[in-house]
Parts: sequence; structure tokens; C-alpha cells
Amino acid sequence: MDLRTILEKFARGAITVEEAQKAISIHSVEHVGGIAKLDVGREMRRGLPEIIFAERKEYADTLRIAQAAVKRNGQAIVSRAKKRDLKKLAGALKKKGLQVEIGRNSTTFLVSDGKRRQKASGAVGVMAAGTSDIGIAEEARLVAESMGCKVVASYDVGIAGMHRVFPALKAMLEQNVGAIVVVAGMEGALASVVASMVDVPVVGVPASVGYGFGGDGIAALASMLQSCTLGLAVVNIDNGVGAGAFAASIAKKRA
Amino acid sequence: MDLRTILEKFARGAITVEEAQKAISIHSVEHVGGIAKLDVGREMRRGLPEIIFAERKEYADTLRIAQAAVKRNGQAIVSRAKKRDLKKLAGALKKKGLQVEIGRNSTTFLVSDGKRRQKASGAVGVMAAGTSDIGIAEEARLVAESMGCKVVASYDVGIAGMHRVFPALKAMLEQNVGAIVVVAGMEGALASVVASMVDVPVVGVPASVGYGFGGDGIAALASMLQSCTLGLAVVNIDNGVGAGAFAASIAKKRA
Amino acid sequence: MDLRTILEKFARGAITVEEAQKAISIHSVEHVGGIAKLDVGREMRRGLPEIIFAERKEYADTLRIAQAAVKRNGQAIVSRAKKRDLKKLAGALKKKGLQVEIGRNSTTFLVSDGKRRQKASGAVGVMAAGTSDIGIAEEARLVAESMGCKVVASYDVGIAGMHRVFPALKAMLEQNVGAIVVVAGMEGALASVVASMVDVPVVGVPASVGYGFGGDGIAALASMLQSCTLGLAVVNIDNGVGAGAFAASIAKKRA
Amino acid sequence: MDLRTILEKFARGAITVEEAQKAISIHSVEHVGGIAKLDVGREMRRGLPEIIFAERKEYADTLRIAQAAVKRNGQAIVSRAKKRDLKKLAGALKKKGLQVEIGRNSTTFLVSDGKRRQKASGAVGVMAAGTSDIGIAEEARLVAESMGCKVVASYDVGIAGMHRVFPALKAMLEQNVGAIVVVAGMEGALASVVASMVDVPVVGVPASVGYGFGGDGIAALASMLQSCTLGLAVVNIDNGVGAGAFAASIAKKRA
Amino acid sequence: MDLRTILEKFARGAITVEEAQKAISIHSVEHVGGIAKLDVGREMRRGLPEIIFAERKEYADTLRIAQAAVKRNGQAIVSRAKKRDLKKLAGALKKKGLQVEIGRNSTTFLVSDGKRRQKASGAVGVMAAGTSDIGIAEEARLVAESMGCKVVASYDVGIAGMHRVFPALKAMLEQNVGAIVVVAGMEGALASVVASMVDVPVVGVPASVGYGFGGDGIAALASMLQSCTLGLAVVNIDNGVGAGAFAASIAKKRA
Amino acid sequence: MDLRTILEKFARGAITVEEAQKAISIHSVEHVGGIAKLDVGREMRRGLPEIIFAERKEYADTLRIAQAAVKRNGQAIVSRAKKRDLKKLAGALKKKGLQVEIGRNSTTFLVSDGKRRQKASGAVGVMAAGTSDIGIAEEARLVAESMGCKVVASYDVGIAGMHRVFPALKAMLEQNVGAIVVVAGMEGALASVVASMVDVPVVGVPASVGYGFGGDGIAALASMLQSCTLGLAVVNIDNGVGAGAFAASIAKKRA
Amino acid sequence: MDLRTILEKFARGAITVEEAQKAISIHSVEHVGGIAKLDVGREMRRGLPEIIFAERKEYADTLRIAQAAVKRNGQAIVSRAKKRDLKKLAGALKKKGLQVEIGRNSTTFLVSDGKRRQKASGAVGVMAAGTSDIGIAEEARLVAESMGCKVVASYDVGIAGMHRVFPALKAMLEQNVGAIVVVAGMEGALASVVASMVDVPVVGVPASVGYGFGGDGIAALASMLQSCTLGLAVVNIDNGVGAGAFAASIAKKRA
Amino acid sequence: MDLRTILEKFARGAITVEEAQKAISIHSVEHVGGIAKLDVGREMRRGLPEIIFAERKEYADTLRIAQAAVKRNGQAIVSRAKKRDLKKLAGALKKKGLQVEIGRNSTTFLVSDGKRRQKASGAVGVMAAGTSDIGIAEEARLVAESMGCKVVASYDVGIAGMHRVFPALKAMLEQNVGAIVVVAGMEGALASVVASMVDVPVVGVPASVGYGFGGDGIAALASMLQSCTLGLAVVNIDNGVGAGAFAASIAKKRA
Repeated sequence: MDLRTILEKFARGAITVEEAQKAISIHSVEHVGGIAKLDVGREMRRGLPEIIFAERKEYADTLRIAQAAVKRNGQAIVSRAKKRDLKKLAGALKKKGLQVEIGRNSTTFLVSDGKRRQKASGAVGVMAAGTSDIGIAEEARLVAESMGCKVVASYDVGIAGMHRVFPALKAMLEQNVGAIVVVAGMEGALASVVASMVDVPVVGVPASVGYGFGGDGIAALASMLQSCTLGLAVVNIDNGVGAGAFAASIAKKRA
Repeated sequence: MDLRTILEKFARGAITVEEAQKAISIHSVEHVGGIAKLDVGREMRRGLPEIIFAERKEYADTLRIAQAAVKRNGQAIVSRAKKRDLKKLAGALKKKGLQVEIGRNSTTFLVSDGKRRQKASGAVGVMAAGTSDIGIAEEARLVAESMGCKVVASYDVGIAGMHRVFPALKAMLEQNVGAIVVVAGMEGALASVVASMVDVPVVGVPASVGYGFGGDGIAALASMLQSCTLGLAVVNIDNGVGAGAFAASIAKKRA
Repeated sequence: MDLRTILEKFARGAITVEEAQKAISIHSVEHVGGIAKLDVGREMRRGLPEIIFAERKEYADTLRIAQAAVKRNGQAIVSRAKKRDLKKLAGALKKKGLQVEIGRNSTTFLVSDGKRRQKASGAVGVMAAGTSDIGIAEEARLVAESMGCKVVASYDVGIAGMHRVFPALKAMLEQNVGAIVVVAGMEGALASVVASMVDVPVVGVPASVGYGFGGDGIAALASMLQSCTLGLAVVNIDNGVGAGAFAASIAKKRA
Repeated sequence: MDLRTILEKFARGAITVEEAQKAISIHSVEHVGGIAKLDVGREMRRGLPEIIFAERKEYADTLRIAQAAVKRNGQAIVSRAKKRDLKKLAGALKKKGLQVEIGRNSTTFLVSDGKRRQKASGAVGVMAAGTSDIGIAEEARLVAESMGCKVVASYDVGIAGMHRVFPALKAMLEQNVGAIVVVAGMEGALASVVASMVDVPVVGVPASVGYGFGGDGIAALASMLQSCTLGLAVVNIDNGVGAGAFAASIAKKRA
Repeated sequence: MDLRTILEKFARGAITVEEAQKAISIHSVEHVGGIAKLDVGREMRRGLPEIIFAERKEYADTLRIAQAAVKRNGQAIVSRAKKRDLKKLAGALKKKGLQVEIGRNSTTFLVSDGKRRQKASGAVGVMAAGTSDIGIAEEARLVAESMGCKVVASYDVGIAGMHRVFPALKAMLEQNVGAIVVVAGMEGALASVVASMVDVPVVGVPASVGYGFGGDGIAALASMLQSCTLGLAVVNIDNGVGAGAFAASIAKKRA
Repeated sequence: MDLRTILEKFARGAITVEEAQKAISIHSVEHVGGIAKLDVGREMRRGLPEIIFAERKEYADTLRIAQAAVKRNGQAIVSRAKKRDLKKLAGALKKKGLQVEIGRNSTTFLVSDGKRRQKASGAVGVMAAGTSDIGIAEEARLVAESMGCKVVASYDVGIAGMHRVFPALKAMLEQNVGAIVVVAGMEGALASVVASMVDVPVVGVPASVGYGFGGDGIAALASMLQSCTLGLAVVNIDNGVGAGAFAASIAKKRA
Repeated sequence: MDLRTILEKFARGAITVEEAQKAISIHSVEHVGGIAKLDVGREMRRGLPEIIFAERKEYADTLRIAQAAVKRNGQAIVSRAKKRDLKKLAGALKKKGLQVEIGRNSTTFLVSDGKRRQKASGAVGVMAAGTSDIGIAEEARLVAESMGCKVVASYDVGIAGMHRVFPALKAMLEQNVGAIVVVAGMEGALASVVASMVDVPVVGVPASVGYGFGGDGIAALASMLQSCTLGLAVVNIDNGVGAGAFAASIAKKRA
Repeated sequence: MDLRTILEKFARGAITVEEAQKAISIHSVEHVGGIAKLDVGREMRRGLPEIIFAERKEYADTLRIAQAAVKRNGQAIVSRAKKRDLKKLAGALKKKGLQVEIGRNSTTFLVSDGKRRQKASGAVGVMAAGTSDIGIAEEARLVAESMGCKVVASYDVGIAGMHRVFPALKAMLEQNVGAIVVVAGMEGALASVVASMVDVPVVGVPASVGYGFGGDGIAALASMLQSCTLGLAVVNIDNGVGAGAFAASIAKKRA
């Protein structure tokens, strides 16, 4: 029984004040989250892509869910597909007339119906410190693009070769990026370095690269959290998807 | 010897091409960071307040440094003053004709010459889950205000009383905040909850509250990093200053 | 504007269906948590005492809050009062005609107006492995008693003297306890041992006793979590309050 | 030599007082645990299913042990069978005329002779935050059902979609559950959220889902232990079996 | 009612077989631990000193408990007395005609009535790597001596001066020690080194010395556990009392 | 040039005092460890079996090294052979006329020439808490037997069924064991329980069993180190070899 | 546009002072790292080999990159090649007329064109505690040799057989090594022991050997960091490449 | 009995070959470490200052030990004196005619008789990232100077102001430093940055600065160990003394 029905029943005397009050109360309890969302967060939800974590899904399930998501929203991110499923998935989706863009060194891809409805608004920079970090960076790029942002990407720009950071940053600033995602494993210093040089918010993504003490991204995470540079916030280790979405939500506002 | 001088000397033949080239090279090495900053990051730097960490400084030093900073920039944040110095510092600065605003439950304050030059641009929400977190939240508020943002603060809005979150969020969204800082200790769930309900970027600050396993902010940090909600990034435990600056840098762009 | 008012206005035609619908929607968003609680959790909330964590509160604040809570609910738990405030607080509250029961070896106390409204229903066992754990155990006892449970307490019953466990358990089982709280530091084995011998749910509380590797309750926590004995669940280190409330909520149901 | 024999021998003068005393003493040492159990814990033991951890057992051993257990008790839980053995085990047991119920997304199953002797008494709620947690939740369900409880299960009810929590809780409360098991990985917030909304004891099971800092269930565990909500206790990461048994032992008492 | 009484009552027909059986059963449950100990562990218990952990006890309590223990057993170890109580305690006990031996650099002491009943049997070596470790080593010495062992102690024999180890070991071996306690903080290497050179069991005690990564005894503990040298077992960090008792129990058997 | 040669040369004037002194000095530096060992530790070394860690060795190498070791010492322990090599190794060694005893549930075995030279002296108890711990326990048994000790083994004696501990301990004490090895995973409580009941030194071996928080033996290790029971020392997780050797070295002394 | 061109243009009036200044400024930003490096670090860079981490590279990529590096520098280190690629890589490179030296027990190799241009200067000692550490030690050896150092290697020199350390050290000191790399897993004591005996800097490499508490090199790392011996610094666990380069950079200076 | 005496006795027939052999053997065992050191490490030992850790020493003891050390070696380092003793110690030593140099922001000082015997040989750079790190850096400086090195120090050169690093490095390279000590807390990035820019070995000292996750130097340590830059090794957190000695031992060789 929806709210209008309750009210109409009440208006025509079919239920008493007490009955109406109770019915509305139950109604509130049942739909409370939904209401909150629909009323408060509606605009944003439209911008966010649907993310399908394929890591633990069977091939057929992923395929079906991805198609349904594209039907609903025009596009979807399929994240961390199983390696052996990747090509097969892409092939099957293309056969259905969909467009598929697979991230470099990555098993994450963007699938869409080609009718990208969002106009490009806002630009995001994505930087990766080493070749092993590119897959994570690509997750960020695909998500930001699916949210309608232009992405200026620059990979393999490590702290050991800091001279490569300067031209990359210059390109990003020239494109007027609203936020920069920096993916970095090992000691993770690149994120601090970048944040100390620019005036746009930097989102650090520690990458699970490295070995021994502080390996698997822990040193990079600690390093980024300890950074005394203002203008840097982080997401969890390897969370390229989250970083891309966060950066795009900043950049779009700006645009 | 600055660049112009080198060039002028070279122009009038006082130095050879080789000498000029070498002088410029040395000049580059010496001032490289500075140049990069001046050219690239200038706009942002102007917006960021000077932060004086007073925790390990002597009373006299803090006083002197704070005055100098206000002279330079019109204002400064003095963060984590020693408890026994707080009132004395505030008093001394006021005597010099400066304005001092001390954060609630906090030993951080904003000192300024009253001629706030930045026009208010952008709004930031600051939310704290429990009374113990207010001090950290106040750091964020003072920093964001010093950067010219309007701050909508709401404290003591915990997960145990989630019903208090809704009106607080409503107020923030009505004020059109560009980002929301959420300070939360214990299990830190508030940050995820807020991020799942709004469409503005949320900056989580784990607070060093709690005891036993996961105490001192570790559970809150882990919780925020693990959150499957998009739109949430974090700074280090108790880093109210960093969160405030990050949020303000987003909000200002938006404005 | 409360729900009844909205409905009455609507009934007498003061507002349209659309206006009523919108007003109810806003009402829902604002009070959602509150409604959910009032409707769903009302019965339980009545049973739970108000807990006032005095650790970081000033003397005057604690006093005032405690009095207000007793006025509201007839009783309150003041937990972890500052040592130097304990006697003063108890004295001041007694002067106001209130009854105060301080836990043994503890700075937690129960304050009430003497008109205990809850009839005793259900019994809870509380066991502590060593003298250092008694303070935590007393927190559990006071909370369970404030919830109307009879408590059978037995302290200083350690693993090194397992023979002391048997008569204690026997007494608890004879009193028909619905749950047993076991507080244990060091290796925390007592909780497993008890859970392996009885058929009532056991709530383990690791105590922050011990030193070196696994000290501060970590070994006890790990031990209890690893226990292969069914019938044991745990709360955080030193969380006597939580254990008492959990055990009492089980025991009351049973009664 | 059992106690009666000793006493009879002593009564007819076949052994002296001293001999009787010594014989009884030896008797005590040998059977002490057994006696304690038989006398004290008898009732509960009858209710608990036999759990066969198949993870490190060979196919043939698991089969044999499971059959023997069903013969003894009418039913048994086979937990974490090897994936490749699951179907084969189920088939072989069915051929023997036994009934097998495999948990969804799980390698745990309940095998019984179909003559369930326990009458349904008490209800337990089981909630899982994400699809990856269902296997753990199913362990809890099967154990609780084997103990004679009715189970109201609701899966895929996550924090990101909190609106799905309300109807699920409503259904559980309507069924009068005596305890609710909440399985949650990632940030594990669901357990706190549920415990803050209901007046029945909640048993949290952190699931080994998640990655990076706090992954493998550590963030969820920390979060649940830190929760400031009363009415929540936890078992170890992924310990669905333990949670189900604990919840059922509460619910049965209530019934 | 003790066992003999039960039996005698039964013998003279005052109770039936069934009554006797039940009385004995209850007796077993109540005293089970105690019986087990008295029958099985009696010899050893006599050897072990009573340990009074004074760390959290009030001056008056420690004094009283210590006197009672000496009355019972002729001697007692008072461990980790508060610094400010140490001299006062020693003085008070001496006034009562007791003998007090305080460990060097330690707040642990042995108090006895001077009528040492145990004849020296077995010798134990105690070695400390640095001056900071002497307090822990003295705990081991006092406990071992109280158990009737001769102790050959050698302090300040560090890995940095390995040449000092040889004469110390030589002295111990000449005294025919049955076990050697090695207290070592920092990297804890001394325990491995000693174990690799002698043919008596070595008990390692990591000392909570050191700083930074692996400080507080963690590096020493890890090091000793990792040692590939056979003949080394460890106790917890700073557990001099436990090491002394363990070593003495080995050495006495040998004697 | 050995010492005698140097001395003889010197005696017959072939070298000067200075030359002799220098030659001896060099000789010392070169053979110092060896000398120390030969002189100091000789007796023990004879007792210790040679341990061949086969885990990272190729089949052929393990075979060759094992044969050589048996030739030298009459026997050797091959520890943690690769599963696929185990039978093949045993077969090949038997073909050479050697005797091979493989540990139950284990890939460790004792190989010998059948002419066991050591007369049995001393007895050692070996106890395992669960079936998963048997492999580790068997390592301890084989090592202790190879050192000439009689071993009284009792497996699957867990804390959940403490009543099974009593008869096992009784049997060990009747055999006059000089030390007891207790292997226990999960919460590791068995080691404390045993140590609290007997008067022989107990060597705890945490087993890498268990999951979630404190899994992989960490809870068991912490638990054993925290135990407040005197008479318990530990070796590293899964170090059955070390525990067996340590226990045997105690037991042999006693015999 | 390089600096000379800018200056020449300026000199002949093709650009103004302002234009020259701006061009130089951009030039600085773009090439800043490069300039700094070229000017400051040039000499060293020449000495360092190119390291190709093959662990995550495809066979064909590794081959191509290795050949290119040899072309550029005459040699290259291919580190951690996949086991299955190792022989194939070596074969393919030899067919191209290159020289390949594979490290013992290692998948790291040095490939060169045979025209080693660096004259041997300086010697480095490389010591490994156990056979499992040899692979790491070989990485250090190959890197140091590629930098023109003579390497004195000594493997399988463990703490358990300290007598083997002396002749190894003697050989190294006789060869006048400028630094010694010590690779050690388990308790890692060898590094301290060596540093306490020699007067050359020692570079410790913890090896990821060991199990249980402190396994995977953590105990060795902690141990080396805690060492109270002056003259010891460490690199990360298993970082043989870094240790070899560091040691060689010391040794070369000395030569 | 020293070696010469043994030999002379033997030469004149006072002892037999066998007696001589045995006497030498005992002599070896006793003095083995000493011999090894005297013969092998003599040169270096002369260079190393005596370090007196005053942290746990009484005022009088520190004074006495320091004077004795200066008498023996001409100088000594007193490290981490208690704050309240610092001035008093310095005053007392000066009164004795000694020279005292206290480190800035430090409680470590160098005391000498003014007759510095070591000629300056080699230069060492010492760099600190923040003002809080200066005390640690000063420890390194004083130790390196006491070993006869010239020290080029540059403090407060942080990553946030990377432009300050260049002139500092330039000054160090101009002074021809043989090694650079870099002290850095928080994220510790400075050490990697410096190592990537220079061709001299860099010794990283993580400082126990920072808070929250990775605080107390752990992030800095992890960061430095993870650094992919060759030419960087580390010592433990806050180990300025060790870093200074290590760097000086490199620099002196070079000189």
C-alpha cells in the first residue's frame, strides 16, 4: 500500500486516524532507506556507473549481469574478470552489438551501448608509478570516463625517475584536471610528491606491489597516510575503481 | 644571480655562451623545486593556511612564529598547542590586536588580523560521530574556514543514533556543501553510511578513539578503507587539518 | 509537524493530497532512525540502562548527566569514573537521596532512585579468572543487575586452579543462569573451558592483563576466537559493560 | 572397575577402607572430565549436532565418519568438504537412504536419517551482507536447523543498500527470532547497524572478504568489536558453524 | 563430607549404595581439580615457591600475604614490588625476623624464615646479555635458588663482546648446570649462540629492551623462536620467574 | 698444520717462539668454533640426530645426503620430504638395507642402519590436541626416539574433550617421562592445562592450525607464552623437531 | 629547444629578454629531474647496471629488453626470471653471441657482450647463512661484479656452525673487501656476528626463510635492525640486488 | 697462563706435548672471541668511539663512566642523557677540564680531552627532513666527527619543500662526502629522493615521528626498505648513532 493510497483511504473515511498513522509508520520502516536515497542522493546515483565485480562470478552470470546493466544504464564496468574469461566475455558482448574497452594490463573493462549519454564534463589526471600499477590505473580511468570525465593518463612515471613526473603533470594541468589519481606501490612516494607540486586534490591509490617488510601495498598506504603534504587523501590498496569514482565526482562538480 | 641578470650579462657580452649555459645550469639545480612550485602551484598555495604544529614547540617559539605567519598571510592555524599554553597563547595574541578562535574541545586555533581577505567561496560539511571526536572535527572546520569556505558543522551524530544523521545531512545539502568531512572513531561506520547517502565527496577521518582490538583508530581506518561505498576517501587517523584542507580545496573549486 | 497533525490537517482539507504526501516524506527523512527505533526496538530499549562513560568527562558534567539519567529512567550506570572523582561523585549522588553501588576493584557504579521498577527476571553468571579481572567483571554484574537479572558472581577462578571452577559453575547452574560472562586475561583459556562444560551460552571478555607477546588482552581475544568449543561468543577486550548487557538480554528472554 | 563395584567390594569386606579410598581416587582422575560432562552438560550436548570438518580429511574417511555420526545422532553437519568431493559425498550418502541438504554457495551440508527427532523450537535470523558471505551464512543456517530451530534467512542485504535491511529485519522480528546471526565482510558495519535497531541478541560473523588494509575479515572483526552498540557479540572470522550454534542455543531457551 | 566419611557411613549402613554413589559423584565434581593435583602433581608443587605478584597490590596486602606464605612454606618470592614500597617491605619483613634477598637491579625479592628446608640439588646457569637485562635474570636466579638449585650467574655478556661468553659458559659447565637461562633483549642472539655451544637445555627469555622495529622484546622473541639451533625453548618476554622455575625443574631432576 | 705439528716443529727448533705463536694464533682463528664445539659440546652432539630438511631439496640430493648421514651416525631424520617423494625415498632407502620409520600423517621419517647404538634412556611424553596436529607430534616422537628416549604418545586429546587428557597423562606419568611435548593449534590451551597438572617440564608446540584472527598458530603461541602456569616453555609454531630434541635432552639427563 | 639554442636566439635578437626568460623557465620545469641527474649523478649512473625485473614480464619482452640493455651498456642484470623461461632466455641470448652467467640456485643472471669495460676496482664479500639463501646472495654477487668489483663469496656459513664463519671472513679480509653482504634468514644472527668481528661496513639482507612467528624474514629483519653492533645497515628482505649495488658502491670508492 | 708462557714451558721441557696441547686448547676456548677481535678487527675498533647509553644510568654512574672512557680513548659519546642530568653532566665534565659538545635539540653529547688524535679523514653528509628529526641527526654528526670525519649537516630539508634539498645536496657533494645520512620521519620519502639523485651511498634513519597508521617511524622504515632506488640502506628507527658510525666507516675508507 503506497502512501497516496493510505491517504486517499483516510480521506474517504475508509480508515481511522489511528489506522492511517500505523500504516504510515509501517510504510516508513519498510522503505526508509529507499526513500532517503531517492530523495537525497538521486542526482549522484545517475552519474555513477554500475560496477560488476566479476572475480568470483561464473562466466555466464557475469555476461548476463553485464548485459542487463547496459540495458538499464547504457554502460557498465566489469571489474577483475577472470583472466581466462576476459576475451570470451568481450567477444560475446561485442557480438551483441555492444562496445567494449578493456583496460591495458587489466582485466577490467567498460561495456556500453555506444550511445554515451553523459556529455564530457570535467577532466581527471591518472598517473601510475610503475608498469605493474597500470592495471589499477586503468580501472580508475575507465570509471572516470564512464562518469563523463575526460582522462589525462600518464603511466610508468616513478620516483626513481622523478624527471618524468614534470612533463606528465604539466600536461594534466594544461588540461585543467579537477583531481589527480596517483597509483603507486613500493614506497608510494609519488603521491606525496605530486600533491606537494599541484593545487588540485590528489587521490592516492597504494598498489599491492613490493615485497618483504611493508610489501603488498602496506608501505605505500602508510606512506601516503603519513604524508605531511596537504591535499592528499587515499583509498584502499588497489582500489582503482574507488579512486576513479572519487576523482570524477570532484572533477564533474568543477566543470 | 637571477636568470634575468645572467641573460643581461650575456646580452652585453659580459659572459660567453658557455658561461651563460653553465650559470643557468647551476641556477636550475639550485632553484628547481622552487621554480616548479612558483610556476605550477602558485594559485593553490595562496589558499592554504600556514599550519604551525605547536605540540613540540616552546611557548615563546610558538608565539613568535604565529605572529610572523599572521604578518605574512593575515592568518595562521596553530595546531595542538600544549594544554597549559593554550590560554596564555590566546591571551598574548589578542593583546597584539589579533583575533583568536579556539576550536571546541580542542587545542587548535585560528589566529588572524581580522582582515580576512578571502571571500567565502564554497561550503564544507563537518560531522563528528561522538563527543570525543569534536576536537578533530574542529581542526577541520578551522582550516576550511581559513581557506574561505563556509562550514556547516554537526557533532555527536553517531551510528548508535543514526536517526540524528538525517537532519544533519539535510542541513548540509541545503547549504550546498562541496564535500563533507566525517570524523569517526570506534568502528568508524558513520563515514560509509554518509557516503552511501549523498552525492558529494566524503573525506573520512578515523579518530583515535576506542580500545582493545582495533582501538586507537585502527578499526575506523580499516573500516573506511574497506567500505564498498563509492565516494569516500580517507586521511590518516586524527588528521583533521588534512581533511579540512582537502575538503576545502574541493569545495572552493566547485564554488 | 508530527504525523497526526499532518493527517488531521489533511482530513479537514487544510492541505492537499500532494502537500500531505510531501510533508510525510520530509517527516520520514528527518525522523527515520527515530521511527525505526521507536517502533521496532522499543521493548528492548526500556530494558537497557543508560551508560555514562565518565572517563573523559569533567566531574560536574558527570554528576549532572547522571542525575538527569536517573530522573529519566530510575537508574544509570556510570562507567570508568576518574579515580579521584569516584568517592566525590558517590557522595554527591547519595546526598541527593540516590542509591549508589560501586563495583569492587572498579570505578564503575550503578546509581538509582531505589524504586527499582524491573522485577528480577533471569539469572546471569559472571566469572573472573584473576583478581585483576574483577573490575571488568563488576561492570558486567552491575549492568546485568540494572537490567533486572539476578547475578551469580564468582571471582578469582583461574585456569591454574581449575579445581575452583567446578563449584562456581555448579552454583551458577543451580541458579539456572541463562548465560555466563567469563572475564579472562593472560591466555584467556577459562572461557573455552567453561563453554566446554556447560549448556548455556558463554560470553567471553578478554581482559587487558598480560605482558610481552599477546599482552594487553590480545592473546586472550585470539584464544577465545580460536576456541573450537561451540557456545562461546566474545566482546572486545575489557568490554564488561557490553558483555553484561548481552548476557542479560539472553537471560531475560529465557525467564 | 566402576564405582558401584568398588563400593560393593568394600561393603563385603573384599577391600579395606584404604584400598577403597585409593581405588576411588584413581577412578576420579581417570574419568573426571567425563563425569563433569555427563553430570553437568548433558542436556545441551543432546542438542548440538556433530560437526565433521572435512577440509583435511580424505573422501573415504569423511564418508565413513558421517555415516557413523548419523547412526549415533540421526544427523550430522559435514563442514567445508573439498569441492571435488562434495557431489560424490552427497550422492554416496543419498544412496544409503540418507537425506542431504547442501548449503547454497557452500561446501557444508547437513546429512540426516530423515527422522528429525527435535521438534522445532525457537527461531533464528540469519543475514548476509553480500553474495560472497552466503556460504558462511548457510553454515549458520544448517547448524541452527539441525538444532531444531526455524531459520529466517535473508542474504545480500548490504550496507550500501541499507534500505534492504529494513524489510528483512521486519520479517525476522515477525517470526519472533530469539537471536540474529549477521555475516559481513569488508567493513562489517551491518552487524552494528542491525544490533542498533533490534532488541534481540546479535551474533556477528566477520567474513574473510575484502582486500588491502583490513582485508580477510580483519576490518570486519575490528569493527564489530569496536561497536558501541550494546547487544552484539562476535565469533571468529568465517565461523558460521559457531555462530549458528550460539544463536540456536539462545533461541531454544527462549522457546 | 570427605571421601572417608562417605565410605564409613556407607560401611555402617547409614547410607545406601545409591546414596554413596551420588555423594561420591558430587564430591568428584566439586574437588576434581584439587584431587587431580594432589594425586598427580604433589611432588612438584612442593618444590615450587609461592610467587606473589606485588605490582598491583597495596603495600599492606603484599606484606600480609608474604608473611602468610613464609609461614606456610618457609619462603616466598615477591615479584615486581612497587619501587617506592621495596625498601619498606624489606625492612618490615626483616623486623619480623625474616631473611630478605633483593635481586640486583630488580624489585623482586626472596623472603624466607632462614630454615631453608630444601637441600641444594642441581645447578642452573643464568646469563644476561646486557645490564638492562639483569633485573629479569635476577628473578630467574631467586626462583631457582628458592627451589633448591645452586645458581651460576653471569651478567653483561653480550653478543657485541662474544669473547665474554666463553669463560662464563666454561664456569657454568664446570659447575655441572642442568639448564641455562639466557636473558637477552635487542636482537636476542645470545640465546642461539649459547644453545649452539653447549649440550644442556637452554631457556631463552627475551627482554623488553630495544626500540623501533622489533623493540620491546619482539625481535628477541622472534629471533629465539626462529633459531635453527636445537636445544632452545623460550618463555614470554621478561618472564624471568617462569624461566627460573622451568630451568630449576630440569636441573633438580638431574641431580 | 695441526697443533701437534706446530708444537713438534717448535720443539725441534724448526720454528721460533714468534713463528710458533703466530701459527697458533692463525690456527685459533681458523678453527675456533670447531675447537669450542669439540671440547665443550661433544657429548651432546653425539646424542643429537642429524636433521635433513628435505622441503627444498631435490629427490636425488635428499637420498644421497640421507645415506651419507646414516653411514656417519647410524641414523638420520629426514624432515618434511615432498609428498610426492616420500614413498620413493623410503623405498630406495629400504633397498639399501636401511630401516625407515615414517611418522603418521607426516612426511618426516627416521632412517637407520638398524644397529641403534644408543641404549634407551629416559622417556618423553608426546601429546597432540587434534588430528591435524599429529604430523607435528610425530616429528617430536621420531627425534626423541632417535636420541634414545622411549616415547609415550597420545594423540587427539583436545581441550574440548578434557576428559581424554587424564588417562593419557596418567600413562605418561606411570612411564616416568622426564618431559612432555604438547602440540596444540587453535587456542592452544592444552599446553597450559597439562603444565598445570604435572610436575615435569612441558614443551609447548603451537600448531599452524586455525583460521581468522590468531590463525596459523599465532593464537596458540600467544596463549602458551601468556600462560600463568609455571613449568611451560615453547618452541616456534610447528617446530616438532625442536620440541622433540629439547624434551629428549631433558629426559636423558634425568635417566 | 635546448638551452644553447635559446641563448643563441636571444643573442642574435630573435627573441626578447622576456621570451628568453620564459623559454628557459619552461625548459627548467620540463627537464628538471634530468638536469639534476645529468649534472649531479652522472658518474654513479655509469657504474650501476641496468636491472630488468623479469618476474612479471613475458618471455619475449624480457628477451627484447635485455638485448637492448646490453647494446646500450655492454651488460644487464635480468632478475627473477620465471623458472620456466630461464634456460630458454639464456639459450636465446647466447645464440646472439652474448655471454650469460646464471646465479647458483637463482633465476637471476648477468648478460653481457663480453667486452667488460669496467676494470675491476674494489672487492666485496658475500656471505650466506644457509643453502636457501644462496639465490639471494648470488643476486648480490652478480650485481657487484657487473659494477666492476671482485667478489669473494662464501655460502652455507650458518650460526649453527659458527666455526665456518672464521675462515670465510679471513679469506674476505685477505682480499681486502670494502664491504661485506651477509644474507641470513631464520633468526638472522649472522649479520650481527660478522659486523662485530670486522672493521668493514656490513650490509645485512634478511632472507624470507623461516616459518611460524617471525617467519618470511621478519625475525631476521628485526634482529638486524635491533643489533647493538655498530657497522651494520640493512636492505629489505630478499633484496640481494640492492645489497650488491650498495656494497659495490662502497667498495669502488675505496679502491 | 698466556701462550708464550705455555710455549716456553714446553720448550724447556716443563710440560709434555700433551700438556701443552691441552693448555693451548683451554687457552683457545677462553680467549677465542678476544683473539679473533684483537687480530681481525683491531684497526677499526680504534676508530669507533665508546658509546655510553645514559638513558637508564644514574647521574653519578654516567659521570664516572664518561670520565673513564675519555681517559682511555681521549673522547666518548654520551647518548640520551636524562634531560634533567644534561646540563649538570656537561658542567661537571667541563670542570674536570674536558670539552663537551652537546647536539642541538638532543641529549647526546661528545666529551673529549681536546687532544683529538684522529686526523680529519673523509666527509659525511647529514640531512634531516624536519625539525623534530634534528636530535637524531645530531647523534649521527657527533659520532661521525668523533671518528675523525668532517660533517656537512643540513637540517629541516623536507619533502614538502623539495626545493630546499638541492642546495643542501650541492653543498655536500662539493665537500666530497663519502656517504650521506638522511633522517626522516612521517613518510620518510626524503631518503629515497636523495638516493635517487646522488652517487654516494645513503644511510636512511627512519625517525619516530608521525601518528596514526604507520606512526612512530614504521611508515618511514617501510618506505625506505621498499624504495626501488639503488644505493640506500637503513638502520633502525631513531638509530642516529648507528647511522653516523656506518657512514663514517665508509667515508674514512674513501679518504
